[in-house]
Amino acid sequence: MRTSMSRWTAREAEFLAVTLRLLQQHGYDGLTVEAVAADAKSSKATIYRRWPSKAELVLAAFVEGTRAREAPPHSGSLRSDLLQIGDWFCDQSGQHASTVRAALTEVSRNPALGAALEDAFVHRPKLLVADALVDAADRGDVDSRVIVDEVCDLLPGYLLFRYLFSRRPPTAETVRALVDDVLLRGLTRSPPSL
Amino acid sequence: MRTSMSRWTAREAEFLAVTLRLLQQHGYDGLTVEAVAADAKSSKATIYRRWPSKAELVLAAFVEGTRAREAPPHSGSLRSDLLQIGDWFCDQSGQHASTVRAALTEVSRNPALGAALEDAFVHRPKLLVADALVDAADRGDVDSRVIVDEVCDLLPGYLLFRYLFSRRPPTAETVRALVDDVLLRGLTRSPPSL
Repeated sequence: MRTSMSRWTAREAEFLAVTLRLLQQHGYDGLTVEAVAADAKSSKATIYRRWPSKAELVLAAFVEGTRAREAPPHSGSLRSDLLQIGDWFCDQSGQHASTVRAALTEVSRNPALGAALEDAFVHRPKLLVADALVDAADRGDVDSRVIVDEVCDLLPGYLLFRYLFSRRPPTAETVRALVDDVLLRGLTRSPPSL
Repeated sequence: MRTSMSRWTAREAEFLAVTLRLLQQHGYDGLTVEAVAADAKSSKATIYRRWPSKAELVLAAFVEGTRAREAPPHSGSLRSDLLQIGDWFCDQSGQHASTVRAALTEVSRNPALGAALEDAFVHRPKLLVADALVDAADRGDVDSRVIVDEVCDLLPGYLLFRYLFSRRPPTAETVRALVDDVLLRGLTRSPPSL
């Protein structure tokens, strides 16, 4: 289930969609406001009136592109919740992998873009996992002490890593292995001493 | 313990070190062979004689920069092996985080750079983890069926994610939590049904 509304008009959203596409094709440095204007059959001045710099335009495009928020599944089963969150995040990251690559170089010069990236690819998925774990703890399925940072962003972190670094994009089977072979096994037991 | 020798002379290694530093500062698109030559007090021709293009120069610099290989710890304890591998990989990724960011944009245009990135940040750490798990399986501490892809590159994948995406660079405590709260718990038990 997706929530949240766009703050932009249809024409503005079109500029942002063009920006995102050109960003994926040419990277941050290769993107020009001129090319966005030409592609959207507009003028540079029209775009600059809304977004005074390329950095602001790219930030707005990125925030708009990753705007769709996923509601917590609340399925009543931790396994099912985690699989749903993993599948959603797999789609989300796959769709934006090249934008993320293009944006990462710019993060050190553009902290607002870094924050937007962190929000979309760290905070939001992490909150969904935390929510599923709180549900499971309420049901008595897991100990609430397992709800630590590392556990909550492991699923999005690993999936994003697979998209960005390896030539093995993650699949539904990757999500299943991560949930069944790592997360569920670990979350529901007391720690061993090896 | 570090292994492997450089294939470059001291002077060549100096060009590559300058390239890596300028890559971190200016990103791939902002890097010029001219700037490398000026910084190393050399001529563009000298550099082009060794590396015929900027892409080849950057690839060589990246491979040289991440050349140090870690030998498998073989400590006799899975926990201690994983902590050592995690700490090493934390250092390695922290040192190269900005290079990795700069290189990621270029991966789609330069597959050899993508392969070098994958080798340094996926394959090598993954082999170390797999090695530690095979040792543990030989000792009877874990079931050999747990040695799947997702488990072997979870540690490097998550740590790299923390460096690249969040403003919380991983620490020794992150490694410990990942090893104790996720990996060890999960690897040594049979899966629950939730």
